[in-house]
Amino acid sequence: MASSGAAKELQLQGLRTYEQEPRRSASLIVNSQEPFNAETPASVLSSSYLTDEDMFYKRNHGPIPILPDPSTYNLIVTGALPNPLSLSLDFLKSLPKYTVVATLQCAGNRRTEMSKVRKVRGVGWGAAAIGTAAWGGAKLSDVLKLAGVDHFSNVTAEKGRHVEFVSCDLCKEENGGAYKASIPLLHATNPEADVLLAYEMNGKVLNRDHGYPLRVVVPGVIGARSVKWIERIIISERECQGFFQQKDYKMFPPRVDWDNIDWQSRRPLMDFPVQSAICEPQDGVVVKSGDAVDLYGYAVAGGGRGIERVDISVDNGKSWMEAHRLPKLQVGSDGYEDDSQRPDWAWTLWELKNVNVETPCTVIVKAVDTAANVQPADVGDIWNLRGVLNNSWHK
Amino acid sequence: MASSGAAKELQLQGLRTYEQEPRRSASLIVNSQEPFNAETPASVLSSSYLTDEDMFYKRNHGPIPILPDPSTYNLIVTGALPNPLSLSLDFLKSLPKYTVVATLQCAGNRRTEMSKVRKVRGVGWGAAAIGTAAWGGAKLSDVLKLAGVDHFSNVTAEKGRHVEFVSCDLCKEENGGAYKASIPLLHATNPEADVLLAYEMNGKVLNRDHGYPLRVVVPGVIGARSVKWIERIIISERECQGFFQQKDYKMFPPRVDWDNIDWQSRRPLMDFPVQSAICEPQDGVVVKSGDAVDLYGYAVAGGGRGIERVDISVDNGKSWMEAHRLPKLQVGSDGYEDDSQRPDWAWTLWELKNVNVETPCTVIVKAVDTAANVQPADVGDIWNLRGVLNNSWHK
Ligand SMILES: [Mo]
Ligand SMILES: [Mo]
Repeated sequence: MASSGAAKELQLQGLRTYEQEPRRSASLIVNSQEPFNAETPASVLSSSYLTDEDMFYKRNHGPIPILPDPSTYNLIVTGALPNPLSLSLDFLKSLPKYTVVATLQCAGNRRTEMSKVRKVRGVGWGAAAIGTAAWGGAKLSDVLKLAGVDHFSNVTAEKGRHVEFVSCDLCKEENGGAYKASIPLLHATNPEADVLLAYEMNGKVLNRDHGYPLRVVVPGVIGARSVKWIERIIISERECQGFFQQKDYKMFPPRVDWDNIDWQSRRPLMDFPVQSAICEPQDGVVVKSGDAVDLYGYAVAGGGRGIERVDISVDNGKSWMEAHRLPKLQVGSDGYEDDSQRPDWAWTLWELKNVNVETPCTVIVKAVDTAANVQPADVGDIWNLRGVLNNSWHK
Repeated sequence: MASSGAAKELQLQGLRTYEQEPRRSASLIVNSQEPFNAETPASVLSSSYLTDEDMFYKRNHGPIPILPDPSTYNLIVTGALPNPLSLSLDFLKSLPKYTVVATLQCAGNRRTEMSKVRKVRGVGWGAAAIGTAAWGGAKLSDVLKLAGVDHFSNVTAEKGRHVEFVSCDLCKEENGGAYKASIPLLHATNPEADVLLAYEMNGKVLNRDHGYPLRVVVPGVIGARSVKWIERIIISERECQGFFQQKDYKMFPPRVDWDNIDWQSRRPLMDFPVQSAICEPQDGVVVKSGDAVDLYGYAVAGGGRGIERVDISVDNGKSWMEAHRLPKLQVGSDGYEDDSQRPDWAWTLWELKNVNVETPCTVIVKAVDTAANVQPADVGDIWNLRGVLNNSWHK
């Protein structure tokens, strides 16, 4: 039994100390060192459609797990389903591979701006807790089909209605237990929703910071549901009862504060709303009156909705110009070449060049999505105690 | 051949005069008599989850077509597909029947408020160019499958990418030709999108004003795509080139006016954004300071998104209360009983009782959808020359 014990030691391990953290780029903007939370310099975001994996924002709740030997890893698929599975990495890689270009955004993106209105709890983030990558992996819907759950199922014979993802990321919010989250079964079994069990990021092996050896990618949904370092998938009758599903990542109105909050009164956030930000020039850059400035940024909507329009004002909202939406990256290798009808999971980068400004100048961006949803003008109207989903006009 | 000529006369007929209009309720609020455009008294909307078919808003572009003998009707399914069809009403009724509770909303709903900021073109509508019905019919995806187009197709072997619906509603905007519109093929062939060829409304035979004998219902999408009195379905390489797809029902920013419009620069509107309105008390009702008022209304979002929250202010936005969202009607007969994971195609009615008001009092409602999208505070920010999709805070 000694060898079995040794084999177990080699599996994916959650850690309790920060002594084995991966090396990271010195260019990241670090918001918290332990756990490591860092965002991308905004100008890096707008300079490339796909965000470099080393520069991609990193949102963690504990030390980065470690997998000394990939051959010892098994993904467990269990719970209220006909056919429980234990799947090796090699087996997962033998399934049809899909590459999905998807933007992930932390629900706390732009929290710092919200905190300026009234203090909110949570890691401070600028406008770069967001990034876009080409994720490669198996479709969750295919894996669940192997486990006996048909595509487009909203309930299993065993009464399962939710798909819970359990990582081995040990965090204080779960009292030292694992980070977890769930999505509805119909979302997970819908092949068109493109939920991936990803082992690749931008054509490379997923690195430790982003979930090596395997992570979930739920396109169009707040980053918190795209669980990294996944160890088990559990089909359950109830949605995940963990901290991050039940006591965080919900949207409350401004009148709710810590003394009158009722967590059960709200549903867990899934799709994020229409969003945009200016990446260049950075806040505080000095320009002279009459200068011609080039503006760059991103716009994105959750739920597969695309961006219809990006508006820019340099006179505090009195007049608006339309930004030029840059062509999106096409990933053709997986048969998604004509993607105009498919859900749009990834951001639109935009630019507006040679804009004459008068100082003092406040540049504002706002976007419209394909469902004609717009961003709210005033952050105060959407202020919430956890500081999530700040999608007010970005200045 | 005389009998064949006579049979043709009996088919669904577009008319050029208004001499054969159906009888209508005297309670409708008529915005235009010829063509007949009328909305529901707002208090009728909030008094019943399903809107009575006689009171449901009526949006027409010409005289109401007539079908003297239902046995002579055939729906033609043709174009870029393997297997063209001509289908009788009896055959369509023999296909699996689905009942979908869906809200239809005219893109011009609440146009009159937008016109107060700056004049827009189009029929004036209050906040009741909207209604909810239980639509019964065959799924378009099933009919297209019979025509040789698989579920979830985004292109046919014959290069078809769009599904055009041609009515026999003759209108001046088409120079006396038929009203028509299209949706993308993937939307039409997605059984989960619940696009219906409906022959029933609220359990009764569809009446002439609402499209007898057959209409399209595209849930979650502006009413203009739910073509009534449908005669032909054409699979095409291009989207519909008709007036209402190309030169109307598009969203422009406030800076675009009739002298600088470029219709080709925008896509046709599909999903509508998050919306809400106060139905009772009606505008102008006199209340005294200190009175307790009961408030009623609706909230709805397009694209299958549900309503997460409804906020009410009686002090012009300084403070907000949450309205009580009323239970939604469940239609269980078609296996849709657990609909919490399914797309939400129908409105949420809300109430807030015993609200103490100080006069003069402006009541405001705004809603949040399940993707955390919010309504814009200021109608001026979304003003557009055609006056479509006014979803600003309703006062
Ligand atoms: Mo997050
Ligand atoms: Mo309409």
